Amino acid sequence: MREIAIIGIGQTPVEEQWDKSLREIAGGAVFSALQDAGMEQVDGLFVGNMLSGILSQQENLGALTTDWVGLRNIEAFKVEAACGSGGSALRMAIMAVASGELESAVALGVEKMSETKGVDTTAALATAADADYEGAMGLSFVAINALVMQRYMHQYHWRHTDFAPFSINAHRNAMSNPYARLRESIDIKDYHKARMICSPINLLDASPTGDGAAAVVIVSADRFKRSGNGKPLVTIVGSASATDTLAVHDRKDPTWLDAAYRSTHQAYAQAGVSPEEIDFFELHDAFSIMSVLSLEATGFVERGQGPRLGLDGEIGLSGRIPITTRGGLKARGHPVGATGLYQVVEVVQQLRGEAGETQVANARVGMAQNIGGSGATIITHILRNQN
Amino acid sequence: MREIAIIGIGQTPVEEQWDKSLREIAGGAVFSALQDAGMEQVDGLFVGNMLSGILSQQENLGALTTDWVGLRNIEAFKVEAACGSGGSALRMAIMAVASGELESAVALGVEKMSETKGVDTTAALATAADADYEGAMGLSFVAINALVMQRYMHQYHWRHTDFAPFSINAHRNAMSNPYARLRESIDIKDYHKARMICSPINLLDASPTGDGAAAVVIVSADRFKRSGNGKPLVTIVGSASATDTLAVHDRKDPTWLDAAYRSTHQAYAQAGVSPEEIDFFELHDAFSIMSVLSLEATGFVERGQGPRLGLDGEIGLSGRIPITTRGGLKARGHPVGATGLYQVVEVVQQLRGEAGETQVANARVGMAQNIGGSGATIITHILRNQN
Repeated sequence: MREIAIIGIGQTPVEEQWDKSLREIAGGAVFSALQDAGMEQVDGLFVGNMLSGILSQQENLGALTTDWVGLRNIEAFKVEAACGSGGSALRMAIMAVASGELESAVALGVEKMSETKGVDTTAALATAADADYEGAMGLSFVAINALVMQRYMHQYHWRHTDFAPFSINAHRNAMSNPYARLRESIDIKDYHKARMICSPINLLDASPTGDGAAAVVIVSADRFKRSGNGKPLVTIVGSASATDTLAVHDRKDPTWLDAAYRSTHQAYAQAGVSPEEIDFFELHDAFSIMSVLSLEATGFVERGQGPRLGLDGEIGLSGRIPITTRGGLKARGHPVGATGLYQVVEVVQQLRGEAGETQVANARVGMAQNIGGSGATIITHILRNQN
Repeated sequence: MREIAIIGIGQTPVEEQWDKSLREIAGGAVFSALQDAGMEQVDGLFVGNMLSGILSQQENLGALTTDWVGLRNIEAFKVEAACGSGGSALRMAIMAVASGELESAVALGVEKMSETKGVDTTAALATAADADYEGAMGLSFVAINALVMQRYMHQYHWRHTDFAPFSINAHRNAMSNPYARLRESIDIKDYHKARMICSPINLLDASPTGDGAAAVVIVSADRFKRSGNGKPLVTIVGSASATDTLAVHDRKDPTWLDAAYRSTHQAYAQAGVSPEEIDFFELHDAFSIMSVLSLEATGFVERGQGPRLGLDGEIGLSGRIPITTRGGLKARGHPVGATGLYQVVEVVQQLRGEAGETQVANARVGMAQNIGGSGATIITHILRNQN
């Protein structure tokens, strides 16, 4: 595949942005990314978004965004794979530039969730699951994850408290991230005291939603090598995605993320790396159980032993595999269709050495993994600092 | 760009499919397309859909479809650009195969609109327009088109009756299409009698919605030339898309489809053809005014003179530019996110000589054009029979 570089990144704070419309939030990230790239024009725009039709009565976000940001007339589409929409938009942008049809593109993720005009957000989020076989049974998205976590704890003999390190780590890392929604540290006592949402998932096992947008500018690496923009050259060395059954009950083992295994190992092969060579991993910790399952399917720990990495301190900034280094979904926040691009922006920050107090030392290779539905669509990207 | 062939086509009838769920409708088209291609497996699936989140409480249609049709684990996403979603899904599939990331893909368009569970379909369709500046004014989608038509009639001195040939032609061509929703001929008297919807658009100026799905299987042409499947080789010789302002009032001239002009002329250049070499044109006749504007922007007639082509009989099967040869949106029906792929399936039927009573003689080069929003996103494909 044609070598592709990420040459610009932009993001807005994840928060309740009552004073900004959907297009204004999107524009915030796109303008920042273009400015960071030192570009005014690109050939295409791919928007990851899940809920704008339901919550903002607005579809056609490709044209909405190009119109608003002054990139009128360029090719633009919305890409949707539930909470994996952001990663999917990047995957599409990569294929568009790799095909030679476009020379440059913006991949944008945007979600506006606070202002719902009376729509039930829990029901809206349940559209990520199987409406006929899960939704119709009254299963919300958190309920599905609670069943998976319950099963995992039973199957591998873990206690609820063993999951605490994932939330504590995420909150600690978010403290210095100005874009994070929850910049407050938590400890094990807070975790034990947290209100139960859907047993065994309590409030501190779950990520907060929010309004936000993140964007990257990509170009062919050849072009960047010729002109440059004063930033380190960060290229995409692995890009892959896979699907699994939409409903969790259709899987042989509900505690195994097959689409994560498939897409990650394809990306490892493309990049020519093994898990040992990944310096940090922005995983999809929508719920703490998802951190565990992601670490297992990607080969960082054996099956059933995910909580061990947290308990042994291996997920911290100087651990074996630092995760959620800017706060993750848990503390940076989870504006669902935007999340996949927040992850990629954060990987670029680390690879450029722009991660401030949570900088991973000598970060050369980073991985981002975005999940849509209960593991139904999983998109994995591996990035490398080529300088 | 890598040369790409369409080697399989499939569609379901456009109708009210109360006995079928969204996934069953999608599956019907995918199974037919795979069977027509003589293939059991592809590398990716791109689903064009606009309204499933709002009307069926179901997002994540990529995983929904791969799961249902037995293509589990392959890469799959939903692509959305309002009523241009189907053409957008094909455009994405083309870029994916052109990039070399995938060797084969299904592009699917699917929409289930009859069963709305109490949601207002008119409001759902208005999400294609600008929610903040058009929707908030109470403008429905038909109202926006009515304003455009009114302006066009005033500006170029046409009467309402001058638009009748477009609807009459579409209904005539649908008579022999077993997949068409409205297989009933109409005449000028019916057109004059038709109930007014939003002046000057009457019932016979407007296309009916419906439930339906259409799909194509694409592969690199090289691969097809090696193996073949007994069908004529139909390749994609032009593929382009462009955007315009989301709201019509932001355009210099509301009666000019700039994104159609841009995407069509880019596709002409790729294909090395001029309008004279296009044997037939499946255009996006959601309303009769859109047929007129499409024919003008694509260069088949000068600006302001679109109705002339209808009045002079030039849009019929043996006319200068046959359009809506299988019934178009007006009579085949307009299941919004699926429409772009119905158009492409119909172009392939013509190029293969499989169009029955409405076969265009010696059809070698055909064009399909899909529109999302009021001309905000326009996707153009030119196909050629290479045998």
